[in-house]
Amino acid sequence: PRVVCDSPVLATIDAGSGLGFAGARAGMALAIEKARRHGLAAVAVRRSNHFGAAGHWVSMAADAGLVGIATTSTVAPAIVPTGGLQARFGTNPIAFAAPGRHGSTSFLLDMATSTVALGKLMVASLRGHRIPEGWALGPDGLPTTDPGLGYRSRLATPLGGMPELSSHKGSGLAAMVEILSVLLPGATLSMDNPGPGVPGDVGHFFCALDPAALRGDDGFGAALDDMLDRLRATPAADPDQPVLAAGDPERAALKRSRELGIEVPRSLMTALREVARRANCPWILLGAQGGPD
Amino acid sequence: PRVVCDSPVLATIDAGSGLGFAGARAGMALAIEKARRHGLAAVAVRRSNHFGAAGHWVSMAADAGLVGIATTSTVAPAIVPTGGLQARFGTNPIAFAAPGRHGSTSFLLDMATSTVALGKLMVASLRGHRIPEGWALGPDGLPTTDPGLGYRSRLATPLGGMPELSSHKGSGLAAMVEILSVLLPGATLSMDNPGPGVPGDVGHFFCALDPAALRGDDGFGAALDDMLDRLRATPAADPDQPVLAAGDPERAALKRSRELGIEVPRSLMTALREVARRANCPWILLGAQGGPD
Repeated sequence: PRVVCDSPVLATIDAGSGLGFAGARAGMALAIEKARRHGLAAVAVRRSNHFGAAGHWVSMAADAGLVGIATTSTVAPAIVPTGGLQARFGTNPIAFAAPGRHGSTSFLLDMATSTVALGKLMVASLRGHRIPEGWALGPDGLPTTDPGLGYRSRLATPLGGMPELSSHKGSGLAAMVEILSVLLPGATLSMDNPGPGVPGDVGHFFCALDPAALRGDDGFGAALDDMLDRLRATPAADPDQPVLAAGDPERAALKRSRELGIEVPRSLMTALREVARRANCPWILLGAQGGPD
Repeated sequence: PRVVCDSPVLATIDAGSGLGFAGARAGMALAIEKARRHGLAAVAVRRSNHFGAAGHWVSMAADAGLVGIATTSTVAPAIVPTGGLQARFGTNPIAFAAPGRHGSTSFLLDMATSTVALGKLMVASLRGHRIPEGWALGPDGLPTTDPGLGYRSRLATPLGGMPELSSHKGSGLAAMVEILSVLLPGATLSMDNPGPGVPGDVGHFFCALDPAALRGDDGFGAALDDMLDRLRATPAADPDQPVLAAGDPERAALKRSRELGIEVPRSLMTALREVARRANCPWILLGAQGGPD
């Protein structure tokens, strides 16, 4: 990754068509460094690829005591704008994190601007489940309950799911992410990227902001944790399903994985073994335990 | 409005409990001035009130050739977080605008993070219409088709409308807006504000960014207009309803109003006349034309 435009609070990075992780790490690290000095910074990245979980990069900022924002375009279009028959934007996620009173990630939002991420359609398709109306469209532009149709043809609805539930808002958010991630660094539109498996010209946008510089005090983290505690204490429609803050389910999953290990489906394990075989790598499993499929 | 925290790219403004328009204008004007000098700036505002249409403030930035972002908390809670029975966040709008090739607003997104704005529930209630399931909740936490129930009790759903269509994402966006608008300037949470008609402690967040400073060229506006033209050219499910970009309906309405005048419902005219009478103001109508109710 190479810095091609640089000023005290802004930079653009050319990731040289490398792995998205490298471009994203360079981008957020630079935004954090500049925001520590000036209170606010933004870094845009072009010629990158899939950067994994958007939430990871904003957590870097929040773990450094800063508010973090990240957006990315994707390797191919997937979101059909409201009223349309073809995909025009990537699933274009938005991630946002903020530090709590202990100076590490307390609030972590990481969401595709489609109703659901493509991965959810893939999983439903693999398991043979139907999907709710509003997740995906068939080639006729009408809602489908067949996840394979939605997944293979990459026709995901924008957040909102259907016009009468304001899917034009999800459509607008996807366009906003495309503007930030692609048009600011000068990358290639998601709709012009070649698709999964081929290096594309994906763009990212990162922003970091020091809350203490705006507030003039150190009260941000405590105020955030108090707000989140009051959110979680909202009377619940179902007493067994308390109201959650963004990031709570992921934090619980992380704790479970640290205690019990990471669950890997047998089909994925088989696919990984095949990758190792083709690359002539030794296949060594340390501490793996068998389990149900 | 008084600047209480100031640095080259950040500022916090205390709006002194005045009209929201004054605090918002001061905030975005300062963000634009700083972004022109440094390429990027953010201004947070506290002790403000309802600032009108969020889109107006981001248009100020885009008409100055900058990308603009604005968020605001509201005078009372209205969004019920997914799984909850009580409102915890305001309708917490996000607005985003970007300049096209002529250096003025080309893309304009202005959306409440609820499925629909409270105004839509009010209008449906006044007209005696039912509303779609997913716009509002009854006091039991179940979807209602009675707009009056949703409007009077201020129990709006987050964008997504229902859990199976990912309303937790709208909930997360509303929380993000609350963090930016309230926790950064140190304002009062929407859930602690006293409600409409009473001066509250509403907070706003404004950000302005110069696209040329990131791209290193002047190609942003043309690239944006090209992207929007391709979006509008998406094959449409209904040939009579072309795909629109955010801001297109509002631009068409503005053009219509400039040509034909602004439509004012008779009930609103009556209410305005009553305000004038109570304030002992003369009531003079220039160029008004009667029409159907």
